[in-house]
Amino acid sequence: MLNKIKRILIGKPLKSYELQGQKLNKLKALAILSSDALSSVAYGPEQILTALAVLGVIAFWYSLPIAVGVLILLSVLILSYRQIIHSYPQGGGAYMVAKENLGTNFGLIAGGSLLIDYILTVAVSVSAGTDAITSAFPELYPYNVLISIIIVIIITILNLRGLTESATVLAYPVYLFVIALAFLILFGFYHVLTGHIPESTHASIGTPVMGISLFILLKAFSSGCSALTGVEAISNAIPSFKEPSAKNAARTLTLMGCILGALFTGIVILAYLYGVTPSASQTVLSQLGAEVFGRNGFYFFIQGTTALILILAANTGFSAFPLLAFNLAKDKFLPRPFTTRGDRLGYSNGILTLGVASIILIVLFGGNTGNLIPLYAVGVFIPFSLSQTGMIVKWVRQRPKGWLTKLAINLSGALICYLILIIFFVTKFEKVWISLIFLPVILAIFHRIHKHYNAVGEQLRLDVSKKLRDIDMKENIVIVPISGITTVVEQSILYAKSLSDNVIAVYIGFSQEAIEQMEKEWEAWDTGVRLVTIHSLYRSILRPLSKFIDTIKYKTESSQARITVVMPQFYTKKWWEGLLHNQSGTLIRAYLVRTKDIALTTIPYRFKK
Amino acid sequence: MLNKIKRILIGKPLKSYELQGQKLNKLKALAILSSDALSSVAYGPEQILTALAVLGVIAFWYSLPIAVGVLILLSVLILSYRQIIHSYPQGGGAYMVAKENLGTNFGLIAGGSLLIDYILTVAVSVSAGTDAITSAFPELYPYNVLISIIIVIIITILNLRGLTESATVLAYPVYLFVIALAFLILFGFYHVLTGHIPESTHASIGTPVMGISLFILLKAFSSGCSALTGVEAISNAIPSFKEPSAKNAARTLTLMGCILGALFTGIVILAYLYGVTPSASQTVLSQLGAEVFGRNGFYFFIQGTTALILILAANTGFSAFPLLAFNLAKDKFLPRPFTTRGDRLGYSNGILTLGVASIILIVLFGGNTGNLIPLYAVGVFIPFSLSQTGMIVKWVRQRPKGWLTKLAINLSGALICYLILIIFFVTKFEKVWISLIFLPVILAIFHRIHKHYNAVGEQLRLDVSKKLRDIDMKENIVIVPISGITTVVEQSILYAKSLSDNVIAVYIGFSQEAIEQMEKEWEAWDTGVRLVTIHSLYRSILRPLSKFIDTIKYKTESSQARITVVMPQFYTKKWWEGLLHNQSGTLIRAYLVRTKDIALTTIPYRFKK
Repeated sequence: MLNKIKRILIGKPLKSYELQGQKLNKLKALAILSSDALSSVAYGPEQILTALAVLGVIAFWYSLPIAVGVLILLSVLILSYRQIIHSYPQGGGAYMVAKENLGTNFGLIAGGSLLIDYILTVAVSVSAGTDAITSAFPELYPYNVLISIIIVIIITILNLRGLTESATVLAYPVYLFVIALAFLILFGFYHVLTGHIPESTHASIGTPVMGISLFILLKAFSSGCSALTGVEAISNAIPSFKEPSAKNAARTLTLMGCILGALFTGIVILAYLYGVTPSASQTVLSQLGAEVFGRNGFYFFIQGTTALILILAANTGFSAFPLLAFNLAKDKFLPRPFTTRGDRLGYSNGILTLGVASIILIVLFGGNTGNLIPLYAVGVFIPFSLSQTGMIVKWVRQRPKGWLTKLAINLSGALICYLILIIFFVTKFEKVWISLIFLPVILAIFHRIHKHYNAVGEQLRLDVSKKLRDIDMKENIVIVPISGITTVVEQSILYAKSLSDNVIAVYIGFSQEAIEQMEKEWEAWDTGVRLVTIHSLYRSILRPLSKFIDTIKYKTESSQARITVVMPQFYTKKWWEGLLHNQSGTLIRAYLVRTKDIALTTIPYRFKK
Repeated sequence: MLNKIKRILIGKPLKSYELQGQKLNKLKALAILSSDALSSVAYGPEQILTALAVLGVIAFWYSLPIAVGVLILLSVLILSYRQIIHSYPQGGGAYMVAKENLGTNFGLIAGGSLLIDYILTVAVSVSAGTDAITSAFPELYPYNVLISIIIVIIITILNLRGLTESATVLAYPVYLFVIALAFLILFGFYHVLTGHIPESTHASIGTPVMGISLFILLKAFSSGCSALTGVEAISNAIPSFKEPSAKNAARTLTLMGCILGALFTGIVILAYLYGVTPSASQTVLSQLGAEVFGRNGFYFFIQGTTALILILAANTGFSAFPLLAFNLAKDKFLPRPFTTRGDRLGYSNGILTLGVASIILIVLFGGNTGNLIPLYAVGVFIPFSLSQTGMIVKWVRQRPKGWLTKLAINLSGALICYLILIIFFVTKFEKVWISLIFLPVILAIFHRIHKHYNAVGEQLRLDVSKKLRDIDMKENIVIVPISGITTVVEQSILYAKSLSDNVIAVYIGFSQEAIEQMEKEWEAWDTGVRLVTIHSLYRSILRPLSKFIDTIKYKTESSQARITVVMPQFYTKKWWEGLLHNQSGTLIRAYLVRTKDIALTTIPYRFKK
């Protein structure tokens, strides 16, 4: 039943060698891996304007130089990540780069930040997308959280089905979003050039602004950097690309960088030219759309694709999280099940963990996860910085041909990233301090898991040079607890006799008469097996049996004999009949195997009627 | 932890031979077994007046002849039950008597009615008692259900501690109640004799009444019979009495009958003389108390002991239900656990079942179980009738000395009981029809349980004449699934080799390389054990392993070899470390033992760090 539901949702299991078929071509990869980055333009420009708005509309011209700064950062990041892709074609991104070049702990800091970040990506993006939907259809507003959860569940299921299949479903909205924004920007500029826009709507560049300060400009700049979240996704997912995967990934990254840069620049300039002011009730993108096209079908098309791409941005997390978890688990910093592929060859445990974690976040924040955006940006720039630093170390150490240019690129990237991190902590400390608590905790968890796996590995490690054939066999003592003389007991005793010549049957009686009766019957049966009887004053079987095993253990300590306890397990034909049987056998078995150094043999006995 | 709480609540476990100490002397037995019957006088007289009230106050004189009828019925019942006690000194009451003389099915009807009845006793009595408390302290009214549940839990715990100890706690209120009512009646009559009561308050006996009909009189009579519920309790609990138990029980029964009769008669006559009219807001007993004493301390004393005895009436159920369940379970009509004595030598499973069932009833009815009273009365009169009938059959069959007198007593008892049952179904069908559905259902359950136990017994029965020593031993094939070469695998293989010369190690690999690697390592280890490798295309271990076992089974069908699968079970030092290990081993073990005809041996492996 459960299995059938699983088949319908997930599809039939795939054989391991079918893995190749799941790889992505460039265009699909662009859609599936860049929705996070591209969707950022829906809020990046707005974040800049919001930060400047404290100084009034007159300060908005500063958004242009700030946008230039963001563009420079974007270019540096793209160039840096191209170098990372070529150096680490097996994927793994910041975690791998930092671990290899800066040591395990920096790798874990990068990995830990990213893990949390992917969860935040899913929660924030889906919530924002849901907000867009419920803004369009206010009657759905009360079901905000429910809608978000359903969306997460749908994305989870699509990912469990497998990457390519999901890509086909999810690729179109990304293309549509890019087309929609391209049209918006083109028509916007056309209106400007044909003089439809009054000069008075915006202050000219260079207008002096009262109260302008470096702090505010930096805050605006760091806010704008939130448009760069998601840029790293491609470098983490290189193995998902078709061969030659590194080359394909690098090209896809460049393509994405160009699209992102063009859309971001276009929107910032248009917003400046049209004199758009950020407001709580309407997004900058929505205002632009309304100004350029009026509130017609095309406006709703832009809004619709924006909502969709925000939801799809969550999907980036579903591509990246399981891969990162796989890498961390392979290195024994996360539980091993993250390394196993599911029926459809995806890392299903990672996918499920991400789905559940983000649903928990959505429920905890009641679908209102807006306050998490700065935290999310910090979480992205920590691994950014660490991977750039790692690359610097790498170039300095290895000095390959042309390493100075490469060093220069990563060095500038690293400096800018650290600068932005500092700006973040200085200008938005009240929103990001919690990451200073979370990261050490996660690091500690990583290390405890690692320590445990290492300890286990050590204990399991075997010196194979000693041939097994040469090890002496130990004696086997088989104990069979019995409650009477029945077919089941016969079966158990026969089985025990086939295992060892040293079989002891144990009968625990609650009265002297019962014990005497048992001894008489046993003798008559003539089993060739010794019977030990124990009088239990407290009508308990577990305690006397446990004591008896301890005694045998103690007596055979010198010979180090192995003790095996043989017990039957009854299976009734109908489930309710199981209720009519004392389940004490199950409890006794569980207790013995948990606390005693014995082997426990369960013999199933199935009632036929 | 849990064990400690249990010890505090229940007390230390008792040894089986301490059973004798738990027996009751007559005075304590009176208190513990007759609270149900005696508490009935708190509502019996009122029920008669309520039934007559449709004709007006003038009809109340009919309560006197009706009371005479009830008294006659009481005498007959007491006499009949004395005969039952002497004939069945081992207890069991209606169930035993009906089963022995009328056949199993009639016995089960009696038993089933009584089982439900005891649950009703507890629910109804506790709810009524709680109502009395919350009527006195209206601020507690919102916590009605909660108070009832707490009371049931307390009674349950006291019963789990053991019978005598509970009796000491619970005996006093019964004595106090009897004393309180005796005072009430004596002072009441004193006031009448000294002329404090006006003649006009009651119509004189024989006054003609408009609209009087046999139907109404019969309804009033049957309502009055609710005062007789609980009379049978003593005959069910004979083994709880001190030796000579039958004689002591019979004397206690007679004593109880006299007290019950006296109190009932006194209250009916007083109510008539004082012209008390039943009302919704105040009980007849409360009105009488207020008339005789005024609303002073003594009035509250009466009310208090009434509330207490109603609650204690529930305790009768706790004495009778576990014994009846024991008898039914001994005859294989109820699950066997009802036959085992708990730590304190009570039938704890019966006690707990009753506690839980009555709490469920209280919650379902929101503490308002008044409508259940007629159902409860019917449930009592069915076993009354059946046990009387059983006794008739017994006398006719056995014809002991003086059997005609005995027959006459039981015959009149039976006739009256059947008459009352008929009256119940005719006059109160709308409230008792459900018992016509419930009883057949319970009967069916009894029979299905019985059938199952018989089938099991048949399958377990062994022909001991065939000596075990002579049975040929079967070959043992031991299968050890392995996932690599580790200390655990070494331990498993060594153990397997000590069991049999025919050991097969099975390795299930997910890739051809892994399999080849394993085969090479295995050869190098030189175990003397055959390794079978299986390539699993779907990354599943369970299915290939299951198929492999089937294959071995099929190949060895002719020799009927026994297959044993040996698997390790890991125990980590800290609980959270367990989460880091794949629990698939547990699932595989559960699946194999559930579906395959194999023996499954679990070897515990405890990590030391």
